[in-house]
Amino acid sequence: MTSVAEVARQVAACIEAKEPLVGAWHFYDAARLAAEARRLDGLTERGPLHGMPIAIKDVIDTVDMPTGYGSALYEGFRPPKDASCVALLRAAGALIVGKTVSTEFAFKGPGKTRHPFDPARTPGGSSSGSAAAVAAGMVPVALGTQTSGSTIRPAAFCGIAGYKPSFGLIDRTGIKVLCDSLDTIGFFGRAVGDIAMVAGVLSGRPSLAEQAAPAAPRLAVFRTPVWHLAEPDAAQVFEDSLGKLARAGAVLEEIDDPGDFMALFSAHETIMSWEVPRALAFERLAGSHALQAVTREGIAPVAGLTAEAYDAACAVAGAQAVRWARVLDGFDALLTLPARGEAPVGLASTGDPIFNRGWTQLTLPCVTVPAGTGASGLPLGLQLVGALGSDPRVLAAARVVESVLSA
Amino acid sequence: MTSVAEVARQVAACIEAKEPLVGAWHFYDAARLAAEARRLDGLTERGPLHGMPIAIKDVIDTVDMPTGYGSALYEGFRPPKDASCVALLRAAGALIVGKTVSTEFAFKGPGKTRHPFDPARTPGGSSSGSAAAVAAGMVPVALGTQTSGSTIRPAAFCGIAGYKPSFGLIDRTGIKVLCDSLDTIGFFGRAVGDIAMVAGVLSGRPSLAEQAAPAAPRLAVFRTPVWHLAEPDAAQVFEDSLGKLARAGAVLEEIDDPGDFMALFSAHETIMSWEVPRALAFERLAGSHALQAVTREGIAPVAGLTAEAYDAACAVAGAQAVRWARVLDGFDALLTLPARGEAPVGLASTGDPIFNRGWTQLTLPCVTVPAGTGASGLPLGLQLVGALGSDPRVLAAARVVESVLSA
Repeated sequence: MTSVAEVARQVAACIEAKEPLVGAWHFYDAARLAAEARRLDGLTERGPLHGMPIAIKDVIDTVDMPTGYGSALYEGFRPPKDASCVALLRAAGALIVGKTVSTEFAFKGPGKTRHPFDPARTPGGSSSGSAAAVAAGMVPVALGTQTSGSTIRPAAFCGIAGYKPSFGLIDRTGIKVLCDSLDTIGFFGRAVGDIAMVAGVLSGRPSLAEQAAPAAPRLAVFRTPVWHLAEPDAAQVFEDSLGKLARAGAVLEEIDDPGDFMALFSAHETIMSWEVPRALAFERLAGSHALQAVTREGIAPVAGLTAEAYDAACAVAGAQAVRWARVLDGFDALLTLPARGEAPVGLASTGDPIFNRGWTQLTLPCVTVPAGTGASGLPLGLQLVGALGSDPRVLAAARVVESVLSA
Repeated sequence: MTSVAEVARQVAACIEAKEPLVGAWHFYDAARLAAEARRLDGLTERGPLHGMPIAIKDVIDTVDMPTGYGSALYEGFRPPKDASCVALLRAAGALIVGKTVSTEFAFKGPGKTRHPFDPARTPGGSSSGSAAAVAAGMVPVALGTQTSGSTIRPAAFCGIAGYKPSFGLIDRTGIKVLCDSLDTIGFFGRAVGDIAMVAGVLSGRPSLAEQAAPAAPRLAVFRTPVWHLAEPDAAQVFEDSLGKLARAGAVLEEIDDPGDFMALFSAHETIMSWEVPRALAFERLAGSHALQAVTREGIAPVAGLTAEAYDAACAVAGAQAVRWARVLDGFDALLTLPARGEAPVGLASTGDPIFNRGWTQLTLPCVTVPAGTGASGLPLGLQLVGALGSDPRVLAAARVVESVLSA
């Protein structure tokens, strides 16, 4: 049986080789990793994640590693505790490898991370380092967060699996809050099965990993009203994927918008515009000198935005959620794009979350799996979305889809 | 015009006189308060809360004062930031006086605070110091939190006004999470008007303070299924209050349970039993040596409790909320008891939240106002509960009720 120390050596070797190009880590200490591996090897009781290397996004508190929230304002801060997700991973025997680069406060200001397959491109964000670390083979699983598209989009760009659970499924205590009503912990992995296992342990819901894969998944196909923003290669891979799934026995059904999907975009924008300046009130009022310009602008209150407009946006989102609940109930998952296309060139932006924002606003479980490559040879994904709380069913369907598309 | 320095001197004199008996403060520094007052006096622009002394519960982060979360585990911790509510109060010109005693993590383990009118009794909790500081006249307004009954109950015990807003109305960033789906920032004040003004500024909702008081408020009367747990003097003061309000022109209507109120208690218990051990995972797994025994027991996972039971409890709570929304829509507020009776003797417990838990689980706005005194001459309150989001209406009704009952 491989020791955790040996696993840690492999992790360290991969990081040493690739980190100079990728820049996935905000904090990584090879000596600390080796010591932690030895400690795990010395345990007499082994947890369900014994020795599994896991990376933690830098907006998630760790008691033994600095936590900078992606911002110069907090550079070097050492929290007095672990976030709950980290404490629970440790208790399950996971090998916490280090802290991965986040955009500033998991918002728009980019970090240093480059796409592991093309250093001229963004890996996506805000969970940039988590996605890149998994895609580069440094770790099998990483934790991130999602408020717009910060898990699904970078996972798709980097050609790995990504999972944003139903809102409320995973305890968020100890993450840097960006938008209280939307922030969700997300997962990156080389395979859906790895993600499901870790999420199952973390949530106390073994069904996430154990749900039987459907022989013939029932899959809704939904080309959102912004489908014209999909790049041609991404749209083509989407159609090719549908063909492969149909030939493999999946039951596909095109569905129409049951409500007003476009209204979700404006609701999401209004809700973030109201909540973000409040969640980051201290940073905005007392720390703005240390922030990226794009953050300073992004977290400023929007002139003229009223509580009544926020309440109306929440009501719109709630009404749309009721409509989608009825539609999604009949399917294992819905299929749509996880991003407009390949990871864009340049590091100033982490890409457009337009294919994520509606689903995040609906608080639904989302999974992306690799689906092929685009015009530049970079990864493209396929996104599955499920009914609220149907995470075991969506993950099971995602395992089937992953298997069909990788065949 | 009174300077902020003069206000601060009055605050300091009151604290100096009464703190030895009451023990309301976890952190208070007279020199820091005086310096802060001088700074506010020197400002050329005055905020809407200019110079208003406000106390902050110790589970709320402050960048310039230690924040111990009511626990020896965090004694002396200095957060790198203010909670959003504190940052926004400062920006509005409030004079932040210090940190008030909380039970450990705003849960069951009591702090040192005594009832300001009877040192043999609890002031209630978990926001013990905030309630006591206002009741003792040290500050006009204090911030607390509520997850079961941690604002309304101590406010009622201490004979002051208390307000737990609708869930989601006030940004919670920077409070110690106890139960993510229930935690709400609460307010204590000598008068409803003061609370409404502070809450209006903090929430960006001036309507909280500005809603016109109804000439003849429509008030539902609901004696919950646990009314037999009310002490006779509390039940009598409740009936007397109804008489006073009817004579003052309020329209009172007895209502029946529109659903299954008892089911809310078990839902609330299940939801806390699931979420609390997760929110306090670090403390439970890595810090339990430093915790009170009652905390250690209270935050332990409940054997046999499953995610399915938690999901079912959430569904029950959601279904009850729908029923109550229909009923409450027709009233300015509902009247019920805020607590079983007077503050109980002894400091080992902060009292029973049985008259709060159902409303907190429904995420509804709650206000308590002083209604009279009980058998021991200690305060009794009257609780108003409103429809979700109807906080301006409930606060306006509470101003009327407060005026009638204090006449």
